[in-house]
Amino acid sequence: MGRVTVRRRVLRVREGDSSYRPDTLAAEEPMEIRVGGRPLTVTMRTPGDDFDLAVGFLVSEGVLRSADELAGIRYCAGATADGGNTYNVVDVALAPGVAAPDASLERNFYTTSSCGLCGKASLDAVRTTAAWTVDEDPLRIGTDVLAALPDRLRAAQRVFDSTGGLHAAGLFSAEGELLCLREDVGRHNAVDKVVGHALREGLVPLRGSVLMVSGRASFELVQKAVMAGIPLLAAVSAPSSLAVDLAAESGLTLVGFLRGASMNVYTGVERLDPLPVA
Amino acid sequence: MGRVTVRRRVLRVREGDSSYRPDTLAAEEPMEIRVGGRPLTVTMRTPGDDFDLAVGFLVSEGVLRSADELAGIRYCAGATADGGNTYNVVDVALAPGVAAPDASLERNFYTTSSCGLCGKASLDAVRTTAAWTVDEDPLRIGTDVLAALPDRLRAAQRVFDSTGGLHAAGLFSAEGELLCLREDVGRHNAVDKVVGHALREGLVPLRGSVLMVSGRASFELVQKAVMAGIPLLAAVSAPSSLAVDLAAESGLTLVGFLRGASMNVYTGVERLDPLPVA
Repeated sequence: MGRVTVRRRVLRVREGDSSYRPDTLAAEEPMEIRVGGRPLTVTMRTPGDDFDLAVGFLVSEGVLRSADELAGIRYCAGATADGGNTYNVVDVALAPGVAAPDASLERNFYTTSSCGLCGKASLDAVRTTAAWTVDEDPLRIGTDVLAALPDRLRAAQRVFDSTGGLHAAGLFSAEGELLCLREDVGRHNAVDKVVGHALREGLVPLRGSVLMVSGRASFELVQKAVMAGIPLLAAVSAPSSLAVDLAAESGLTLVGFLRGASMNVYTGVERLDPLPVA
Repeated sequence: MGRVTVRRRVLRVREGDSSYRPDTLAAEEPMEIRVGGRPLTVTMRTPGDDFDLAVGFLVSEGVLRSADELAGIRYCAGATADGGNTYNVVDVALAPGVAAPDASLERNFYTTSSCGLCGKASLDAVRTTAAWTVDEDPLRIGTDVLAALPDRLRAAQRVFDSTGGLHAAGLFSAEGELLCLREDVGRHNAVDKVVGHALREGLVPLRGSVLMVSGRASFELVQKAVMAGIPLLAAVSAPSSLAVDLAAESGLTLVGFLRGASMNVYTGVERLDPLPVA
């Protein structure tokens, strides 16, 4: 079983002086996700919460929508020539009647529209794939609650401070209570781990909840929030243009540059409490 | 043709006060890469330098090794139903005799080893795919030259300061001269754009050069440096365990946490000038 951190010797240079010392690194290993025994994708991830990662990935891709669609998950033994288990191959069994994903699913997600490959087609693909809508979610959240999230996320990060190399994703209640925290070298993986955990707990769609990420907000992170039924995504850093477009079209509240009481609200301001007077 | 930045209206909240104002966002759009007319992959990227991105991606994947293997690149017209051009589909023509990539190339890159999916298999895959070795590259670089790179990268970033949302990759000479800078919402894309530009200029393998990235150093970024023949990769933030392992196995010098005169050297310290005495 992989470890979350790894020790390596490093030459530390500081203002001309240098010395060798041990350094703690975020572990990175490939993981293959199989569905019903068929290989679907490989992701480079930090070992740990692998079942959550596999399940969350399938939620993001529209394959899994609720806990009853998941029949089982296991590590594949026999992945190596000597029959050993690398704990890097995870096989997900779908419940009877749940459609298995197309092997070329990752590409198709963006190209199912007949109108040509563009941002608009990407938005359409999410809308036609999502099982939930978040636009009517009645979540209201205090700006003071939002302001407290970054510190809570940081305080809960077990690994980041020792390696500086992990992204974090945290799921919070509308009252700002941390429900689930996951970390990974890949920003998408951290979110998939959170969503996968929630699905396995029977909590998807995650109505009334808040997702906070330690980095930027890309199109794909907004997509993952929408696919999991989360009505608010907050990020420490900047969103991209297509992230804002998808949030606007989906009715998701998108908050960027969330740093204490300072934040930018790109979409869905009606969920803020008190409502902004500007 | 897409734009690098996009303006959107945002509610800015600062210590209880709020006001609407225009905000500049990093543009994100999907781009499909085709080879010889056959779709290979879709990446979410910041428009601009699209030909560099497509070519660099193919260098990273071991399809293109030098400028003479590239026959041409063009945007596909007719990508939309009305025959229009979204400038989001790029077709790369390979020179006669150059093997086209397998459509399942992305997955296969990590799983060609028979020993099972693990970090070691990923290292083996890079070694067997790379056309160049970097371990005998005679590059020597002053720690004072390295110390100056972060400021130079920041100074050259045209877009980052206005959006906060773009990753940067810079190619430097051993004397610290900036040869090429590219930015993107995707960290891998920024590196692919730099490498693609270099290949098109006939500069691959990039012996004696230095690649600097604004974020973290993952396995895939070390892979991209090795595939382009770059002997030194420097990052502002932390490397992962597998990034350090691949750098060690490949003979690449890996520098992390490069912040002025402060840096961690994980592998290949023999390229530093003066040699550390520790």
